[in-house]
Amino acid sequence: MHMDILTLFPEMFEGVLQNSIMKRAREQQAFSYEYVNFRDYTTSKHNKVDDYPYGGGAGLVLSPQPIFDSIEAIREKSEKPPRVVLLCPQGEPYSQQKAEELSEEDHLVFICGHYEGYDERIRQELVTDEISIGDYVLTGGELGAMVVIDSVVRLLPGVLGNEQSAPMDSFSNGLLEHPHYTRPADFRGMKVPDVLLSGNHAKIDEWRHKESLKRTYERRPDLLEKKELSDQEKTWLDEWKN
Amino acid sequence: MHMDILTLFPEMFEGVLQNSIMKRAREQQAFSYEYVNFRDYTTSKHNKVDDYPYGGGAGLVLSPQPIFDSIEAIREKSEKPPRVVLLCPQGEPYSQQKAEELSEEDHLVFICGHYEGYDERIRQELVTDEISIGDYVLTGGELGAMVVIDSVVRLLPGVLGNEQSAPMDSFSNGLLEHPHYTRPADFRGMKVPDVLLSGNHAKIDEWRHKESLKRTYERRPDLLEKKELSDQEKTWLDEWKN
Repeated sequence: MHMDILTLFPEMFEGVLQNSIMKRAREQQAFSYEYVNFRDYTTSKHNKVDDYPYGGGAGLVLSPQPIFDSIEAIREKSEKPPRVVLLCPQGEPYSQQKAEELSEEDHLVFICGHYEGYDERIRQELVTDEISIGDYVLTGGELGAMVVIDSVVRLLPGVLGNEQSAPMDSFSNGLLEHPHYTRPADFRGMKVPDVLLSGNHAKIDEWRHKESLKRTYERRPDLLEKKELSDQEKTWLDEWKN
Repeated sequence: MHMDILTLFPEMFEGVLQNSIMKRAREQQAFSYEYVNFRDYTTSKHNKVDDYPYGGGAGLVLSPQPIFDSIEAIREKSEKPPRVVLLCPQGEPYSQQKAEELSEEDHLVFICGHYEGYDERIRQELVTDEISIGDYVLTGGELGAMVVIDSVVRLLPGVLGNEQSAPMDSFSNGLLEHPHYTRPADFRGMKVPDVLLSGNHAKIDEWRHKESLKRTYERRPDLLEKKELSDQEKTWLDEWKN
């Protein structure tokens, strides 16, 4: 997979992309990336990439020309049209399902505005996916792009070893993860539940399943509405409701 | 505001914290931060900070001891107990309201696990806030911490100039933002809506309000359920529903 990242602040990405799992994924050639500083494409005399909004109001808006020309340069080098992702609070809420979908692509382009708004014509003509990573406001689209990149790259074949992938399975089965414990069995008087020390794997699996459901029921009942429940799960839920 | 960031990968944060608005906010002393590499606190012979999970299964779990000792060292230096934020997919979904709440604090501590799970005793005894930045899985808590830090710091007094703050007002009034346009009025045949060029500010405000509501209605009807609607807004919604 190749990614092109349109940003005025490429150095913001380096800490995240040049460390740990992302670094190794790149070295393994699971993915490659390139920064496109769209200021290089502006035809404005003063190297501007943004301007005041029509209709007034505070704030600046990214101009269409530098973004259109950057994307066209990328498309010319590309065999088939890439997915073009715009990071913004107005986008579709990002999800694990969307991460899985994007991880199937060969080529992703990210447009990161930095505190400005985006000229609407960019959205209408260039963008295939508007994504919001959550209902909060950030200083720019860069962190959103990093979040999408990280969540997609970890799904690419060979990137995660077994040791790293297993404990993060929240959402993949529609439930939040069960509690984890490691040594010591007694830490300052706080003890690990007996069942986990029992060696009885059927009981351990049941305990984990039940705790996973319980945590979801207590913290994120909205997730249960989307899930098909087994008979066992329905029985447990009825217990807690009564 | 002071932030302590517990992480094994402090260098991941530098690009984000040492650029643009975050960099300036730190220079203006709107906030300060320190990295705490909790490996420095481990009493394990081999400098380990994680171990295999009780009850079996793949994956590693962060051990309680290094985290407990790190947090206690921070608390000893602190006048009053800080908020301790754990980033994890099982946490409360992060929101702009939560960002506003955290921005009122004097001292925040972030615990970032890196692909491991967390020993449950860390959650139970040390953590005041478990936060999930969204329903997707990341390789670690570091990006989540950066997202929370960025969204909180931009709310601190004096950090954002007027030019930067205005266009990002999604969520603050319960609606997604209206479309923005900047020059040129005609870009390759794509034209700016006439009303924005009219100079009639009452009409412009009405257009923006209506577009903002329309976008929310089309993309995020869930946000409208939480909002108190004005009579005008109800009339518009009825129009679109029929």
